[in-house]
Amino acid sequence: MVQERGAVMMRGDKMVSAYEKAQIIVEALPYIKAFYGRTVVVKYGGAAMGAPELQDAVMQDLVLMKYVGMNPVVVHGGGPEITGMLNRLGIKTRFVKGLRVTDPEVMEVVEMVLVGKINKQIVAGINRCGGKAIGLSGKDGGLIQAVQMNGAEDLGCVGEVTRINPCVLKPLLEAGYIPVIAPIGIGYDGTTYNINADHVASKIAVALEADKLILLTDVPGILAEPDDPASLISSIRVSEIPDLIDAGIISGGMIPKVECCIHALENGVARTHIIDGRVPHSILLEVLTDQGSGTMVVMG
Amino acid sequence: MVQERGAVMMRGDKMVSAYEKAQIIVEALPYIKAFYGRTVVVKYGGAAMGAPELQDAVMQDLVLMKYVGMNPVVVHGGGPEITGMLNRLGIKTRFVKGLRVTDPEVMEVVEMVLVGKINKQIVAGINRCGGKAIGLSGKDGGLIQAVQMNGAEDLGCVGEVTRINPCVLKPLLEAGYIPVIAPIGIGYDGTTYNINADHVASKIAVALEADKLILLTDVPGILAEPDDPASLISSIRVSEIPDLIDAGIISGGMIPKVECCIHALENGVARTHIIDGRVPHSILLEVLTDQGSGTMVVMG
Amino acid sequence: MVQERGAVMMRGDKMVSAYEKAQIIVEALPYIKAFYGRTVVVKYGGAAMGAPELQDAVMQDLVLMKYVGMNPVVVHGGGPEITGMLNRLGIKTRFVKGLRVTDPEVMEVVEMVLVGKINKQIVAGINRCGGKAIGLSGKDGGLIQAVQMNGAEDLGCVGEVTRINPCVLKPLLEAGYIPVIAPIGIGYDGTTYNINADHVASKIAVALEADKLILLTDVPGILAEPDDPASLISSIRVSEIPDLIDAGIISGGMIPKVECCIHALENGVARTHIIDGRVPHSILLEVLTDQGSGTMVVMG
Amino acid sequence: MVQERGAVMMRGDKMVSAYEKAQIIVEALPYIKAFYGRTVVVKYGGAAMGAPELQDAVMQDLVLMKYVGMNPVVVHGGGPEITGMLNRLGIKTRFVKGLRVTDPEVMEVVEMVLVGKINKQIVAGINRCGGKAIGLSGKDGGLIQAVQMNGAEDLGCVGEVTRINPCVLKPLLEAGYIPVIAPIGIGYDGTTYNINADHVASKIAVALEADKLILLTDVPGILAEPDDPASLISSIRVSEIPDLIDAGIISGGMIPKVECCIHALENGVARTHIIDGRVPHSILLEVLTDQGSGTMVVMG
Amino acid sequence: MVQERGAVMMRGDKMVSAYEKAQIIVEALPYIKAFYGRTVVVKYGGAAMGAPELQDAVMQDLVLMKYVGMNPVVVHGGGPEITGMLNRLGIKTRFVKGLRVTDPEVMEVVEMVLVGKINKQIVAGINRCGGKAIGLSGKDGGLIQAVQMNGAEDLGCVGEVTRINPCVLKPLLEAGYIPVIAPIGIGYDGTTYNINADHVASKIAVALEADKLILLTDVPGILAEPDDPASLISSIRVSEIPDLIDAGIISGGMIPKVECCIHALENGVARTHIIDGRVPHSILLEVLTDQGSGTMVVMG
Amino acid sequence: MVQERGAVMMRGDKMVSAYEKAQIIVEALPYIKAFYGRTVVVKYGGAAMGAPELQDAVMQDLVLMKYVGMNPVVVHGGGPEITGMLNRLGIKTRFVKGLRVTDPEVMEVVEMVLVGKINKQIVAGINRCGGKAIGLSGKDGGLIQAVQMNGAEDLGCVGEVTRINPCVLKPLLEAGYIPVIAPIGIGYDGTTYNINADHVASKIAVALEADKLILLTDVPGILAEPDDPASLISSIRVSEIPDLIDAGIISGGMIPKVECCIHALENGVARTHIIDGRVPHSILLEVLTDQGSGTMVVMG
Repeated sequence: MVQERGAVMMRGDKMVSAYEKAQIIVEALPYIKAFYGRTVVVKYGGAAMGAPELQDAVMQDLVLMKYVGMNPVVVHGGGPEITGMLNRLGIKTRFVKGLRVTDPEVMEVVEMVLVGKINKQIVAGINRCGGKAIGLSGKDGGLIQAVQMNGAEDLGCVGEVTRINPCVLKPLLEAGYIPVIAPIGIGYDGTTYNINADHVASKIAVALEADKLILLTDVPGILAEPDDPASLISSIRVSEIPDLIDAGIISGGMIPKVECCIHALENGVARTHIIDGRVPHSILLEVLTDQGSGTMVVMG
Repeated sequence: MVQERGAVMMRGDKMVSAYEKAQIIVEALPYIKAFYGRTVVVKYGGAAMGAPELQDAVMQDLVLMKYVGMNPVVVHGGGPEITGMLNRLGIKTRFVKGLRVTDPEVMEVVEMVLVGKINKQIVAGINRCGGKAIGLSGKDGGLIQAVQMNGAEDLGCVGEVTRINPCVLKPLLEAGYIPVIAPIGIGYDGTTYNINADHVASKIAVALEADKLILLTDVPGILAEPDDPASLISSIRVSEIPDLIDAGIISGGMIPKVECCIHALENGVARTHIIDGRVPHSILLEVLTDQGSGTMVVMG
Repeated sequence: MVQERGAVMMRGDKMVSAYEKAQIIVEALPYIKAFYGRTVVVKYGGAAMGAPELQDAVMQDLVLMKYVGMNPVVVHGGGPEITGMLNRLGIKTRFVKGLRVTDPEVMEVVEMVLVGKINKQIVAGINRCGGKAIGLSGKDGGLIQAVQMNGAEDLGCVGEVTRINPCVLKPLLEAGYIPVIAPIGIGYDGTTYNINADHVASKIAVALEADKLILLTDVPGILAEPDDPASLISSIRVSEIPDLIDAGIISGGMIPKVECCIHALENGVARTHIIDGRVPHSILLEVLTDQGSGTMVVMG
Repeated sequence: MVQERGAVMMRGDKMVSAYEKAQIIVEALPYIKAFYGRTVVVKYGGAAMGAPELQDAVMQDLVLMKYVGMNPVVVHGGGPEITGMLNRLGIKTRFVKGLRVTDPEVMEVVEMVLVGKINKQIVAGINRCGGKAIGLSGKDGGLIQAVQMNGAEDLGCVGEVTRINPCVLKPLLEAGYIPVIAPIGIGYDGTTYNINADHVASKIAVALEADKLILLTDVPGILAEPDDPASLISSIRVSEIPDLIDAGIISGGMIPKVECCIHALENGVARTHIIDGRVPHSILLEVLTDQGSGTMVVMG
Repeated sequence: MVQERGAVMMRGDKMVSAYEKAQIIVEALPYIKAFYGRTVVVKYGGAAMGAPELQDAVMQDLVLMKYVGMNPVVVHGGGPEITGMLNRLGIKTRFVKGLRVTDPEVMEVVEMVLVGKINKQIVAGINRCGGKAIGLSGKDGGLIQAVQMNGAEDLGCVGEVTRINPCVLKPLLEAGYIPVIAPIGIGYDGTTYNINADHVASKIAVALEADKLILLTDVPGILAEPDDPASLISSIRVSEIPDLIDAGIISGGMIPKVECCIHALENGVARTHIIDGRVPHSILLEVLTDQGSGTMVVMG
Repeated sequence: MVQERGAVMMRGDKMVSAYEKAQIIVEALPYIKAFYGRTVVVKYGGAAMGAPELQDAVMQDLVLMKYVGMNPVVVHGGGPEITGMLNRLGIKTRFVKGLRVTDPEVMEVVEMVLVGKINKQIVAGINRCGGKAIGLSGKDGGLIQAVQMNGAEDLGCVGEVTRINPCVLKPLLEAGYIPVIAPIGIGYDGTTYNINADHVASKIAVALEADKLILLTDVPGILAEPDDPASLISSIRVSEIPDLIDAGIISGGMIPKVECCIHALENGVARTHIIDGRVPHSILLEVLTDQGSGTMVVMG
């Protein structure tokens, strides 16, 4: 419900004048026009899934995007809840190069937590903010086809995407729903796979011919000086990336994120963004304001 | 075109923090949701048609409304340009109770200025702001059927609306256009009539089953103390109006405006607003912020 | 309303037998079939805009075309009314090679008369004959993009078409309207331009992939002997035109009209016609009878 | 193909001026408007099925109706060809009150001739004139449900309509076809029935909510003086009919035809006509000219 | 109507267990999936048009195909009824290489029997089984264009297909009808032609881009040993056919049938079948069971 | 893939003749016709979720229903897997009148297992059989609104349905998906509720205006003699139920199931069925064969 009008009169402490308010909203107009009817894939994970006020801000941003004519699609990660449940069940797991070795018993827990808990929390959150969300796993409608991840060591049910089947997303988007996707894939033999959510987001952005891919992270973006947030690189081209990796400026966990951006860009997604999920409304700032947020990676 | 990203980095002087910006935009969300897909008829006239920056702000507001899912429809007035042209042509006119006696020679000039000049300026202005406007007179598609205004004295071609034929508006709204309507009516015998723009706006709001009628005026709204803008009555019910008229609080030119609101409300329009066209973005503030603007008149 | 049946019995003086009537209507059948669903652009101007009975005949012809399944689109000229208004306003203008030097003050008058007077007269006329017309200027929906006409001398706001944006015409045609277009263009910088109506008609015919372009003129068509109407050339091919110009048979004001035909033909319009607007129903005779009217120009 | 333009120039002997031609076509405009998109059911039989030039004129009229926006539906009778085939097969039949006693052997012949010969001749004729016809019997899509005709004597397979199922006609009309219907009905037990074509036409007009029912006959219409064609009653109301029957002015075979008209009128068909099939283009004259043809029967 | 449930309880003698029943129905699933939405053209003729129980089984099969999502289209032959009628009329005919010399008098009888009798019997039969059939001749909607068959001797109105115009079939298929087509063609000059039904079926399968063509015959299929039904060749490739003809295994009337299959296969039909019309439900067995029926001819 | 044709030839041991096969499939025809395009809600639970071959048979039945034109919707229960997971996590629960007291910690586990494990197994199973399934919880699109179950004792998150929002199901059904629904509800305050799956199935059947509700159970249906499967009551009317409860024939867990049927019937569902999930293909036997399965409960 729209807030009571009477309440407005009370507001004695407003620091921002009506004119400034209007200016800020008008500033959003060219962005709304530019992205009208466009699909924006958001990878939701990390700190933004932690504090309730950060969660709420993400939900609000997604619903607002929908109402101003964009088609947001959410791919979410897992995080600490999976480890918590594994611990509670006394299941020990080990990691190889940052990837959890996932036997079928672990996979079952991962799937239950991702699909049965986290996905539903996000769906309920968006609905509570006035959007219409629907949760999907990669099994639904055969959305995410996967195979075992190729690598030196057998990581079990850790998979990589072979094909996205976007058919199931089309009628939902047309009917006004925000799809919320758990990064679970299904193999041709029916095996369940756990897949990196950044990769899934990138592949889904490509399959949907999305205009934008936004990766929510726990850093401000790519920093020229690793320890200085003021050194944020606002925009970067694909061709500049190898030098930055050589120089160690892009390193560690940022490398696969940048690779997801490049994959999306090389397959038709117009813009990709690595933004700071710890800042409330960083998605909205990215899509609707002049200053944007985080680092934009584009072709060139 | 979306503003250059590099430019954003320069902006050292921003007084409103990114977080505040986001808050203000998020504040618009419930209003966007509430009016999504709804028709809003705006009577555009008076001071807001004067200063170029006020004109620009109105155009931006209309385009923004369209992009966030509303269907704005504009009815415009005439004003000083008509008198200017009559003077240049050496045509003398006299007024009866504030209404210009309009013989066919005057009518021809009124129509030319309204349809051939003012209407086209508004259309071009909206298009320049990124909207898609199309200008219509009441003759186009038989939009506004009229008869001579009933009254003690013969005012010539001063008319009143007998029927709105909204058929021509439907395909234009569906195709994404903002209709801009000159308040010219056509009689069953082909006579051209000049009609009060507030009345036309009210009738069109009813015919389109609009959700909102906004009358842009040259006052802040209805004031409890005529000379004190701080005494603005934010919201008022139809049942309270007779007492306010008796008390002289609603008087003069405000009375017919309030009557237009009542006509619209009694025929199904949910909300009507008398707002201050001298304030930039007063339309946007009305439709998208908590504080609104001017006076809202509702049933009850 | 269909005429009263009783009235029919009175008609004692009918010279044309019922059978002959039926024959004449049946003669129209192959033309109706051939042009069913096709777009026909008619440039309306000159003498046919003068005498009321000629005007009425044009309106009837357009409405009949619509009802037998064609999609007529009208582009109209201006003529003596513009000069009249300029004179009344005491604005002096001079001509260079037949084109009026059009400064912004003149342009404003031209636009007002074309859009606010002539266009609306035509719209009202078609509606009175039972059609559904809607008037448009080149500013509406960005229909006619223009630049200043290239030439030795600066003619001010005399423009030429750079692009037709037919988007606004499609929903109107689909909804059964007859668009009536004033030849006003808009520049990228917002400048208003006055454009030759024959040129606009030709460009619009191309943009709409029209099947036919009809130019109403004040001559019988192209005459082999300039002073002998009986020497009318009924049909001519583009390849024959240079010789006729060299021979002086096509000369003066007929040359640019023929060029408009050639432009249309070379860009996909199947047939073009230069017909005599002084003959009542010459449009109808052209589109629905064996004898046609005026001169047909075709490729070859 | 549209006639060669060159050929037109030859025509020296035209008696009807171009202007008169145009006038006659323009005269059709109000009728075209009035019946645009309306369904007209034509009972085709009698003399009009005889002489080839009469047949051709009917086909042309039907195709023209289609092209000017009407939806003609044809129901045809049988006539001498049935008797001819029965004679060739040596099958003797007898008549009771003008109705042929129809045993199954006779029924088989009637069906074969109606459906397999006459119906196909009409279909081919319309197609040859540039229309798109499709022939149907009452068995196709269960179009005509029938039972044995109620009466003093058992007439065998002479049936009457119990229900028209117009479902099969809708997609054909929408796809632009002219349905041509043989008056064969089917019983709930699968029995084939021969039904009076006037009755079928009347029932189909009702089921299709037709605007007009036209019965082609072998008389000029209803005559005030039976032997004087000049005494044709141009228009008559249902309430006037009983007196005319009492006076013997409507008698014999005209009575059931008038009853078919009354049935249609009482069930929502707006106008019914009894016209002279011996006059070429009498259908066209009825639907497109001021003078009409034959007798119009209306409610009142 | 669905059979009464009570009745089921009575059935003491069921030999097939519920489980077996379910198995048999489940066996049909992959075939239903494979042919869902696909068009299947069935040539219906020979013995299957004889015994009523065989006729009924064909009707049931066609209706079932429709309900499980296929689009059956029927082309029927003529057979003994034509000869019977010719004999009754005392018309003598002679045959040249198995083809009846068909003068116009004979043609008239052939058309009447095919279109007016046999076609309507099939239509009524399908409707009685709960389907929605509609009968067509090649004249309806210009469905089958034909010319005189090319050959050493003049066979009169024996024709061959030049063009199928499938336009009339599309709206009928979309509206859920089963088209039943009599193999009558129409020449450009309006001549009626009698055409071999196998050829028509093959051409229609091509024009509709059918997935399957089924020819009902009076033999089990292609037999390796002409007199041994157990030697049925279940499946054969086009490339194997010449050798079989040379070896005399495919001979006589089977040759033109195989040629119809080859024509269809070479023009995009995926599978063709020559099956035994004397076996009840042979169509259903072919389309819905593992064992199929008759001989399948495929490319390769 | 359709089975290899060659394989069919091998099958020497077929006990059911081709004719019998065809008969059994033809027997399904009236049921396919009767339920074409109708919605059938199936509660899937109990033993049928146990043995893999029973699971497979259910999946095949659902896919077959889809292909023959029905719209199956699945609501599933939970069962032993929930208890297993609670045990593994060392969470103790207690039962009150057969209902598990569900505190938020338990609820979290229930939701994870239902939504993240069982639901996805069913979805993957249907997809493997060639269907297109999509899994939903009551949170998705706000599908199942719930409140705490009213009762003497506080059972925590045990809920009952207040409103079904079928909007999310419509686009999925239209796009050909089989919705698979976990019986999780969401409160207005965001609380998650566990709801009895039979109840959810009944409510969803009502909301979708389903034609049929099928409850899979672990008994043969309603037995006249509790211990004698041969005493199965094949069909029963709502009015007969009170006496059967009084007589103790309907008792225990059968009572709430019968109540779900009555709720559905009283709200517009035409037929409800309590069938034996332990019998393979019992759903298919119910919907497609004369003998049906289990007990049908209908109004009356």
